Amino acid sequence: MTTSNLYIYDSLTRRLEKFTPATPPFAGLYVCGPTVYGDAHLGHARPAITFDLVFRYLKHLGYRVRYVRNITDVGHLEGDSDSGEDKITKKARLEQLEPMEVVQYYTDRYHDDMDSLNVQKPSIEPRASGHIIEQIEMVKAILNAGYAYEVDGSVYFDVRKYNEQHHYGKLSGRNVEEMMAGNRELEGQEEKRHPADFALWKKASPTHLMRWPSPWGEGFPGWHLECSAMSAKYLGKEFDIHGGGMDLLFPHHECEIAQSNATFGHDTVRYWMHNNMITINGQKMGKSLGNFITLREFFSGNHQELARAYSPMTIRFFILQAHYRSTLDFSNEALQAAEKGLQRLLQALETLDQLKPSDISTTDAAGLAENAMRPCRTTSTARWPLRICLMPLKPSMQCVTAGKPFPGKT
Amino acid sequence: MTTSNLYIYDSLTRRLEKFTPATPPFAGLYVCGPTVYGDAHLGHARPAITFDLVFRYLKHLGYRVRYVRNITDVGHLEGDSDSGEDKITKKARLEQLEPMEVVQYYTDRYHDDMDSLNVQKPSIEPRASGHIIEQIEMVKAILNAGYAYEVDGSVYFDVRKYNEQHHYGKLSGRNVEEMMAGNRELEGQEEKRHPADFALWKKASPTHLMRWPSPWGEGFPGWHLECSAMSAKYLGKEFDIHGGGMDLLFPHHECEIAQSNATFGHDTVRYWMHNNMITINGQKMGKSLGNFITLREFFSGNHQELARAYSPMTIRFFILQAHYRSTLDFSNEALQAAEKGLQRLLQALETLDQLKPSDISTTDAAGLAENAMRPCRTTSTARWPLRICLMPLKPSMQCVTAGKPFPGKT
Repeated sequence: MTTSNLYIYDSLTRRLEKFTPATPPFAGLYVCGPTVYGDAHLGHARPAITFDLVFRYLKHLGYRVRYVRNITDVGHLEGDSDSGEDKITKKARLEQLEPMEVVQYYTDRYHDDMDSLNVQKPSIEPRASGHIIEQIEMVKAILNAGYAYEVDGSVYFDVRKYNEQHHYGKLSGRNVEEMMAGNRELEGQEEKRHPADFALWKKASPTHLMRWPSPWGEGFPGWHLECSAMSAKYLGKEFDIHGGGMDLLFPHHECEIAQSNATFGHDTVRYWMHNNMITINGQKMGKSLGNFITLREFFSGNHQELARAYSPMTIRFFILQAHYRSTLDFSNEALQAAEKGLQRLLQALETLDQLKPSDISTTDAAGLAENAMRPCRTTSTARWPLRICLMPLKPSMQCVTAGKPFPGKT
Repeated sequence: MTTSNLYIYDSLTRRLEKFTPATPPFAGLYVCGPTVYGDAHLGHARPAITFDLVFRYLKHLGYRVRYVRNITDVGHLEGDSDSGEDKITKKARLEQLEPMEVVQYYTDRYHDDMDSLNVQKPSIEPRASGHIIEQIEMVKAILNAGYAYEVDGSVYFDVRKYNEQHHYGKLSGRNVEEMMAGNRELEGQEEKRHPADFALWKKASPTHLMRWPSPWGEGFPGWHLECSAMSAKYLGKEFDIHGGGMDLLFPHHECEIAQSNATFGHDTVRYWMHNNMITINGQKMGKSLGNFITLREFFSGNHQELARAYSPMTIRFFILQAHYRSTLDFSNEALQAAEKGLQRLLQALETLDQLKPSDISTTDAAGLAENAMRPCRTTSTARWPLRICLMPLKPSMQCVTAGKPFPGKT
């Protein structure tokens, strides 16, 4: 294995930390994937591409990487809170479909979009609905540890109790007392002892479509639970990197930390990495905000905000040329600049290939070209590995130059 | 909806039956998918392509089709019996991987292969490991109905008891008494009261990797259970068509019928459809038999039995030009004949497109060409819809002529 001096900015300690995996040569990476109730937009491309690079880079360094990226197909309620309708159920109701048809349809399209962006498939892609038992077992463990309580078929995490022994808010920097003061009483929240408490298991109303039997009656898991349960199942009780978008810092990842500590008695994640947001007119691009442009719209140009179509590799380059922890503002000008930058880079690589050193030259042109095609090996630094590794490995370069077609649908 | 006179040969009644779905305009189709522990071979392509055509044809007739094709990722033991090692666990152990990494890897490759063959994605693709709760609930129901018994953490279906009230063997034509006489005592089978009994739930040995808690201790579901549980979940307690290869008639589909009857008190499937086998030198091509050629080997030509590479559309045409209930013997000659046949068909279509009728012609050449591209509409008959609908719908024809590239991997 290559000796590396990889440093990662850890969102929890808020400083650069030298990367030392728990059990080398293995490295475990867990990244929060999409909630599959609509087409992926530019905001979804950013974590996928950012952590695709982390995945490739760790493999490049010689680690045997197990990359787990989940599919959220149950439990994610509107407004990201513990009330409202399940996002997928709502879509299914509107389109008169079985929820799992919605899940399959948008999962397949997400995969196609990721293929277009040359994002490698994760090692394991677990679905929340496929791990109900694991989640129920975790709820039981948290109840046994005294950090949860049951009310009428639902189970809530007891944040105040947890905060007596641990620090709820350590990742996001929030303070439980402030959260309490700032929280409005929302519909369906009256069962909670404390407004900051969150659902581990929700009782299903009589008409709720997605439901499973549990020790507390028929219901479904809370949104935050799946990632704690599935990361522990596939990466163990201590694993290396947990990634996701900064919008997931709170409440999602904060709740994951609390759940894992309540279950195992310790943190499970060694390094927390968060990519920043894509903005549009200065506001986060998000499905719930309605200001998003889907990847398919970028590829086709069919959106009023788009001057024309942009290729998947332009989108990839646009995202990778910014530092992953900075916001990145969408504009047609920025995309066109990225397109030109990518073309220049590809032209330079072609030129390098064609260079013929003279007989008396001491420069190894072939070696230069080869190294240029493997940017990570020669240019990795401690501080900015993601900034420099703009391009994926060699085979995908061929895709770029050959104009990789979009996956065909019939 | 188009009025249709679709007749289906039902493997259970052994005659052509007029297709009348349970709840028109909806039609439900369940097909047994792959056990994902190796690359798909020609034998896997046949049910996928056969039922792809059924799926397309039912949609073409105007039905709103929900097509469920499962992924078997747990419980399928070596030798297709109730003893031996789980096929996926064995592969994972040999390759030092988490079983779900094996599952993900071969599932992704299966999807790529199906895309190459222009097989449409099913509406829902449930995984056995993702439906453990549903399977446990079914075991409970069968126990409650008195058709199963528990022995030391495993639960077996009581075939003799079931056969007193029902007919075990009605699909495959086998006789329970003969099965009893013909069955050897196999290792791990001594818990069974009757050699024909089969496992609904198996106790996990201490080293078994894939395991879940259950009312009978830690274990995993029997292979046959997943299809009964998942078809009922996504298509209901009565649904239209259950498909699969003839090699699944016994024991798999016979056991499904028994499980569903024991649970719901009635048959759940209205029409059973089975495709026949691909043979090689007269013997069934199968992974367990070791005489298989993978689809990727066909596409690349890298196999000692192959004279050269064959395109995915040649494979598709080869399979569709035989009746789905006949065996189809692999040979290079037959594949090359299929390739020529496909070329001739495509040339004829191109010629039709170029035909210019004279001003006084009464023939509608454009209309002819259009109809030729939609073969199902004009040529469907009651008896042989699968024989005649050789080609998929129009967009994929373009893929054929344009030489659809294989999905790229990096």
